[in-house]
Amino acid sequence: MNIGFIGLGIMGQPMVKRLLGAGYSLAVYDKVEGRGQALVAEGARAAASPQEAACDSDVVITMVPDTADVEEALFGRQGAAQGLRPGKILIDMSTISPVATVELARRLGEQSCEMLDAPVSGGQPGAVAGTLSIMVGGEKRTFEKCLPIFKALGTTVEYTGTHGNGQKTKLVNQVVGALTLVAVAEGLRLAGAAKLDPETTLRVVSGGVASSWMLTRLGPKMLQGDFSPGFRIRLQHKDLRLAKEWTAELGMPAPGTELAYSLFTRALERGLGEQGNQGLYNLWEKELAR
Amino acid sequence: MNIGFIGLGIMGQPMVKRLLGAGYSLAVYDKVEGRGQALVAEGARAAASPQEAACDSDVVITMVPDTADVEEALFGRQGAAQGLRPGKILIDMSTISPVATVELARRLGEQSCEMLDAPVSGGQPGAVAGTLSIMVGGEKRTFEKCLPIFKALGTTVEYTGTHGNGQKTKLVNQVVGALTLVAVAEGLRLAGAAKLDPETTLRVVSGGVASSWMLTRLGPKMLQGDFSPGFRIRLQHKDLRLAKEWTAELGMPAPGTELAYSLFTRALERGLGEQGNQGLYNLWEKELAR
Repeated sequence: MNIGFIGLGIMGQPMVKRLLGAGYSLAVYDKVEGRGQALVAEGARAAASPQEAACDSDVVITMVPDTADVEEALFGRQGAAQGLRPGKILIDMSTISPVATVELARRLGEQSCEMLDAPVSGGQPGAVAGTLSIMVGGEKRTFEKCLPIFKALGTTVEYTGTHGNGQKTKLVNQVVGALTLVAVAEGLRLAGAAKLDPETTLRVVSGGVASSWMLTRLGPKMLQGDFSPGFRIRLQHKDLRLAKEWTAELGMPAPGTELAYSLFTRALERGLGEQGNQGLYNLWEKELAR
Repeated sequence: MNIGFIGLGIMGQPMVKRLLGAGYSLAVYDKVEGRGQALVAEGARAAASPQEAACDSDVVITMVPDTADVEEALFGRQGAAQGLRPGKILIDMSTISPVATVELARRLGEQSCEMLDAPVSGGQPGAVAGTLSIMVGGEKRTFEKCLPIFKALGTTVEYTGTHGNGQKTKLVNQVVGALTLVAVAEGLRLAGAAKLDPETTLRVVSGGVASSWMLTRLGPKMLQGDFSPGFRIRLQHKDLRLAKEWTAELGMPAPGTELAYSLFTRALERGLGEQGNQGLYNLWEKELAR
């Protein structure tokens, strides 16, 4: 099966490697030139445009930062939609607006193509190890056709219902994850302010009911001062903005989402946007403490 | 070695069982009569007062709800301090004020007894399985003497420094845990409000970076409507009050602690105090949504 893959960033690159390893034939594209080189050395074919990545493919996957990037990759100049023949499938694994997702699925449907929204959780380590959590929205039979692809990328693969439900599930994931990260950052700052040994505190808290992926994976990075991006603050902020708008539409009180959004907004304003989301730890120093 | 154990609640009972299983001889006491009966059947000796639990013991352990309960158990009428001979050790495994802890250690020191503060995390399942996380403050040599006892109760045992540091570490743990629980409750409510399948959402979010003990252990209880107490909202609220006071003393900004405290306060006001802390989930219905 031929796959076109658009978006070769922190997540896209290791995902392409997993798919190559599973025996798929891949045409890869990124609007930043040169990003595909290492993948070509491993057997992928470089495409000069999204259209070219799509034209010989049974399935096209997009893995790009935001709603506008997916729209551009599909319907922009030399977009993938121009290359997709009827009956082919577009899987958007980016995290974007659920509302925009439904509209994109409709437009692709007009040219007899199917679409799945299939955002992921698990970060770069999950992408490298093929242990992502994948939440899929769209037609069930399309999901079933693509299941082998998902199984090559992740260990937890769930069908969540109609178009957009994958993105909605991802927003729930982002709310839970972001607020858990706030908990970790504030807790470790509190340990420091109290002159407790932060490493000991991290170890013992990790052994009990307050443990989380954020604590055990990003807690050590906070204490080591490693703020390199697995997932950027700028993107976490974008997801929280989508979540906040969504809770407002639903008329649902969401004090946790609001707190996380306001803290990530402050982090962005303070120039921390390109740090990994564990960089939220720096906010207690830079802004909150004044 | 003889151990006196005071406080036979949700946590104390299984902890006594672990210690009996490890071969210790135990005298047990609870101010609620009859609570020790099942333990006597397993080989513990019932004591009629804290003093009696202490008088033949090398080590006395207190596991009670709050600061005042520890003070009463030690220095109240027929308190344990009256039974403790010089050189003996008091281990307080309750979660209480770090400031009060230092004062209790001083008073016990006046009668040549040593004290450790050794609060735990891991909940009732951790107490039953002997997999608690234990954070210990006090003299290092006293800690080392008591290490076999801690090893019978927990898998993560850490020495955190001087008197009160165990309690301070526990407060960090409570802040991280409570806010992680807020994240879980709000996330699952959001899934429900969006008409996503909550079980599917829980499964897929548990597979990614938003996963936590709170999500995987208390998330299912929220969805099943099981609000029986492992750890009560009333006590979680008490711990958050201590944490909030402490962050104020430290002059540390703590927006996460404040949010968690305000939500648990509302839960308490709404009569949810005796539910397990997963009952916070009910707040979105009862209060926030009005």
